[in-house]
Amino acid sequence: MTMAIDALTTLLGAAGLITNPADLSRYAADASVQGPDMPLAVLRPKTTDEASKAVAICAQAGIPMVPQGGRTGLSGGAVPPAGAVVISTERMSGVIAVNTQAMTLTAWAGTPLQVVQEAARAQGLDYPVDIGARGSATIGGTVATNAGGIRVLRHGMTRRHVLGLEIVLPDGAVLSRMRGLVKDNAGYDLCQPFIGSEGTLGLITQVMVQLCPDEPFSALALLSLRDHAAALDCLVAARSRFGDRLSAFEGMWPDYLDAVCTTWSLVPAPFATPGFAVLLELRARADAQLDGFQDWLGELMEAGLVDDGIVARSHDEERRLWALREAVGEVDAQLGPHISFDLSVAVDQLGQFCHACDRKLRGVQAAGQVIKVGHLGDGNVHILVAHDGSDASVTAISRSVYCVLREYNGSVTAEHGVGRSKRDWLTACRDPVEMIALRRQKQIWDPKSLMNPHSILDLRASNTATLIRQPHRSA
Amino acid sequence: MTMAIDALTTLLGAAGLITNPADLSRYAADASVQGPDMPLAVLRPKTTDEASKAVAICAQAGIPMVPQGGRTGLSGGAVPPAGAVVISTERMSGVIAVNTQAMTLTAWAGTPLQVVQEAARAQGLDYPVDIGARGSATIGGTVATNAGGIRVLRHGMTRRHVLGLEIVLPDGAVLSRMRGLVKDNAGYDLCQPFIGSEGTLGLITQVMVQLCPDEPFSALALLSLRDHAAALDCLVAARSRFGDRLSAFEGMWPDYLDAVCTTWSLVPAPFATPGFAVLLELRARADAQLDGFQDWLGELMEAGLVDDGIVARSHDEERRLWALREAVGEVDAQLGPHISFDLSVAVDQLGQFCHACDRKLRGVQAAGQVIKVGHLGDGNVHILVAHDGSDASVTAISRSVYCVLREYNGSVTAEHGVGRSKRDWLTACRDPVEMIALRRQKQIWDPKSLMNPHSILDLRASNTATLIRQPHRSA
Repeated sequence: MTMAIDALTTLLGAAGLITNPADLSRYAADASVQGPDMPLAVLRPKTTDEASKAVAICAQAGIPMVPQGGRTGLSGGAVPPAGAVVISTERMSGVIAVNTQAMTLTAWAGTPLQVVQEAARAQGLDYPVDIGARGSATIGGTVATNAGGIRVLRHGMTRRHVLGLEIVLPDGAVLSRMRGLVKDNAGYDLCQPFIGSEGTLGLITQVMVQLCPDEPFSALALLSLRDHAAALDCLVAARSRFGDRLSAFEGMWPDYLDAVCTTWSLVPAPFATPGFAVLLELRARADAQLDGFQDWLGELMEAGLVDDGIVARSHDEERRLWALREAVGEVDAQLGPHISFDLSVAVDQLGQFCHACDRKLRGVQAAGQVIKVGHLGDGNVHILVAHDGSDASVTAISRSVYCVLREYNGSVTAEHGVGRSKRDWLTACRDPVEMIALRRQKQIWDPKSLMNPHSILDLRASNTATLIRQPHRSA
Repeated sequence: MTMAIDALTTLLGAAGLITNPADLSRYAADASVQGPDMPLAVLRPKTTDEASKAVAICAQAGIPMVPQGGRTGLSGGAVPPAGAVVISTERMSGVIAVNTQAMTLTAWAGTPLQVVQEAARAQGLDYPVDIGARGSATIGGTVATNAGGIRVLRHGMTRRHVLGLEIVLPDGAVLSRMRGLVKDNAGYDLCQPFIGSEGTLGLITQVMVQLCPDEPFSALALLSLRDHAAALDCLVAARSRFGDRLSAFEGMWPDYLDAVCTTWSLVPAPFATPGFAVLLELRARADAQLDGFQDWLGELMEAGLVDDGIVARSHDEERRLWALREAVGEVDAQLGPHISFDLSVAVDQLGQFCHACDRKLRGVQAAGQVIKVGHLGDGNVHILVAHDGSDASVTAISRSVYCVLREYNGSVTAEHGVGRSKRDWLTACRDPVEMIALRRQKQIWDPKSLMNPHSILDLRASNTATLIRQPHRSA
């Protein structure tokens, strides 16, 4: 161990290695949790070569490693366990190249998402993955977690935009897929395993993304509707009318509006009559492509599908309408002890699923206030459930919600990732064959389980001897 | 072996098993090659359960299996080697469900692509992957090969549209990912390894795809330009003006136009002056979104970027313009012995790369006529090179082209797949770490190498002992 730290000191220098306890503590946390364990050290390589050599030193010494980007994760996936080092990408930062003809951008993994977005926009292009933490979240972190956000409806998850990766594998070998090819069927796609792997298979050092034409014109409306069923009808109607001009379709349940507008008075209540609210956004490259939006909303109201609506007439008004949706951050801060679920089901099942969760939680004594808000067009809801802060309450509430989730064939995490906080609930959405396949996937790339070993899976806690050799289901 | 065939006969019945030599021969070919070896038998399961049990029987008997869809492949990837059985999905056919609210479609793997497209369109939706072989190619086959086609520029490869798969693994276990979740970050994405795996990791039995809103309105122009550089400028201008209304941007080199219009007189020459030709298509949900197309083309001509142009004024005229591009099939049939390369490089490098290939091939005695046509917006060119039919010529020409390809960091196959015909050229675009990773990927899922064992990789021909334990590059 001491020999490894000595070798790392020589390799990385004073700027590249943090061992002072006072400086280590912020590397023990993400945006959801302050971990109980300090890392042994924080490695801050500046080049791929340094990263590769640092990983090789740790691998040879058997030291667990936790890759870390902007620490904006919400599942504890970048929080180091006891005895691990953190490998931070914070010094591997900066846009390396923007190719306007091929519409690609290459950046160091530690580059903040917002810097990537701005570099694209400076060329009249766009990198359309967008999340609230864009100023701190790194492009490498968003790839490692397959980040979602509010524009998934239109542009898909991060996976869709990744054109190339450079990865330091858990033994220090460098896997480079940075050719920038839009089409490449020369064998298995070696980028895919690492996208959404939460740092458990390797350390991403460089990223190449496909950019798209910027869509600077937008139209935004906040709608009041009877319930989720009406909102779903509205979604289908919007898609039918505007196709993929539709860029966001965010749902706010009455309990959310009540919390934001009444309980904490964070934003004035937009409508006199409480109901279900939807933020509907269109985006286009030309203003004319948004024509007919107001008329169409008028038709929906005449047809009785929408009860009330506010259309933004300026960018300021757009920001004010978005503030209602973005107040979820403030709710999160003010609610006190609570679980923040990140669930997805099939798009058409979301209303019934939420209803079933509400019903179930009413029978759970530990469950306090329930608040629901989400990406309705993607079948993704964030359910916040207040409790008394005890572990027993957390377990009781989680068990109830995941029990309903299993009935609806949903996922325990739509976009936040498994990390450490959802690891033990994975089987609520993965059957035994899938669990075996997940473990096997981990073992290919990280046979010694040194890379972020407590996230997604804990190989040491499971019997993995009979992986592929399962009898077929019907046997 | 006999015991296995007996067990398969009992399991699948007379309709489910072909062993008559006269009936076997068509299962020994794909669209590119008639294999020299007849399969031992063709298994035609009708359900996932039958497929699972059939695979388990073969696995236990150590019989290699080759999954087969519509046999429209162009790389020999579905052609069985000696001693293997074919597992055909031809009886697992039909659309199972279309969900218009979630915009998803579920089908048996053996369903023809065109049937999937038509089922989507019947609901005002679209499945946007489109290839010439749509009537025979199966949805399972397009997933297994990550099919591309003419609309990749707008909609991406097949990978982007796959929402779920059901797969029989090489030991008969069934891996099911059919929850239909748009967002699911609950561990590694277990669909990804199978997309583009060409039947080497398992047998796809069911597919769920994400549909998109139909875009029934189109505008199409055939343009004559100086060269590829002018075409690339035109691509950038089209993207800048129309964003993702741009749905196709197909390039035809002068040698292609000469072959089609002069050598074989398949289509009348569209322009008096020979040059580089581009088919530029826009698609939209409303006719008004295509406004300004003619004016914009006029501006390009005034600016000297485009030399001449023909805009289609009806669907009939659109078909006539497309005929020029689609004549590649007839060229393929009439050219005599030739190699059909399926290459990709970064989008902005394609012109220089083709130029370098031309230059190189002029020095190769074995190389006859060279014809270039491709998906310019994706950096993908199909280069046809005539030769005298000898193996030596094939090797000499291939070596020359792939040598140039390596300099340009391209891929030996953009969309047709590796199969058997490009397997031995993989290292032209994959470095040693990648080759190790590819082999490891195969070994996880198919440790006995029973599933399509001669495609993509031949594990038995390679030393795979030191997979992940590579020293890092700089060592």
